[in-house]
Amino acid sequence: MDRFICLEGIDGCGKSTQVAALGDFLEKEGFKVLRIREPGGTEISEAIRQVILNPGYKDKMNDLTELFLYNAARAQLIHEVVKPALRKGFVVLADRFAYSTLAYQGFGRGLDIEMVKNLLRMACGVFFPNKTFIFDIPVSLSKERRSNDTVNKRDDRIEKEQDDFFERVRHGYLTIAKENPETCVLINAARSKEDIFEFIVSHLKD
Amino acid sequence: MDRFICLEGIDGCGKSTQVAALGDFLEKEGFKVLRIREPGGTEISEAIRQVILNPGYKDKMNDLTELFLYNAARAQLIHEVVKPALRKGFVVLADRFAYSTLAYQGFGRGLDIEMVKNLLRMACGVFFPNKTFIFDIPVSLSKERRSNDTVNKRDDRIEKEQDDFFERVRHGYLTIAKENPETCVLINAARSKEDIFEFIVSHLKD
Repeated sequence: MDRFICLEGIDGCGKSTQVAALGDFLEKEGFKVLRIREPGGTEISEAIRQVILNPGYKDKMNDLTELFLYNAARAQLIHEVVKPALRKGFVVLADRFAYSTLAYQGFGRGLDIEMVKNLLRMACGVFFPNKTFIFDIPVSLSKERRSNDTVNKRDDRIEKEQDDFFERVRHGYLTIAKENPETCVLINAARSKEDIFEFIVSHLKD
Repeated sequence: MDRFICLEGIDGCGKSTQVAALGDFLEKEGFKVLRIREPGGTEISEAIRQVILNPGYKDKMNDLTELFLYNAARAQLIHEVVKPALRKGFVVLADRFAYSTLAYQGFGRGLDIEMVKNLLRMACGVFFPNKTFIFDIPVSLSKERRSNDTVNKRDDRIEKEQDDFFERVRHGYLTIAKENPETCVLINAARSKEDIFEFIVSHLKD
């Protein structure tokens, strides 16, 4: 089976709920599971996260700076956590990974797509998810879910971006799914949690 | 005249003294001068600097992470400071710039040289020094000067590296000078401060 699994999608698409459910399921099935979220997961990556998500930097941070910071945090996470875990036989379950950078910084912020892909190859090398589930929802639904979410902290600078930004990101994810049919699975995430979970599990069993 | 001037070389080569002298000289000649040092120079770049130079991360930080962090700080510095200054007619005087990354992270740490060059092109675009003075000294002299330096804080993780690292970095600078004869000037920096200063000024006047 695929050892490095990633769930992707725009904010509010419901992937984090499924990461939790899928992690529990895989553990019950006897797998050792490592859950990761980006940016973060190591002391250095968390320090970088503080810089990336600092609300005071919202209108100041250059898009290229943001791109490099995400990949700095990612390179450290791969080096310290992902690589050793895969070698020890863990299943790595990622709530976002490199495709988030391509969708958000590339398609969303309008950075050159080939440059971003090139940078992701530098940062990840061979440590790229074998299987990525891309959760697709309309931006209107994403917005509704985000505005209803009072539990999670929702004030970081990324989440204050506008609707047209999320439309570009959604388009980015759809493009990624189309360009990588061997490794990406597109999911209509407007469906019920139960349906989505069943779909993922049956796909992984195949 | 060249509007973006950089002084490079291994630690203890004396370039910072010359940056100060050259800046004063250029101002007396009527130029508006912007001095920069890396990593740093903007609020965000300084925050990134804290991560890069944190002594607690010395043995933990992945080389790629370090590479991306330097270029994140650099992209922000170019965006906020270098670009506007050049447009306003300032002379930008840099105590280290992109070639430090190539020499230290590429040649010093052994990262793929073409990858590092590629990354520097992404980070800098057209904002690259027109003229770089590369201060060359033997590593033994660098070591002697560094150990005599009790004024500056000398405990960051970069400066604790070993002699063979500095030999590789020196070799990197010599290679850079050889490969870029139009923009790079190699200086024998074992000479007196006065000689070096005179050499730089006469070169810039040409």
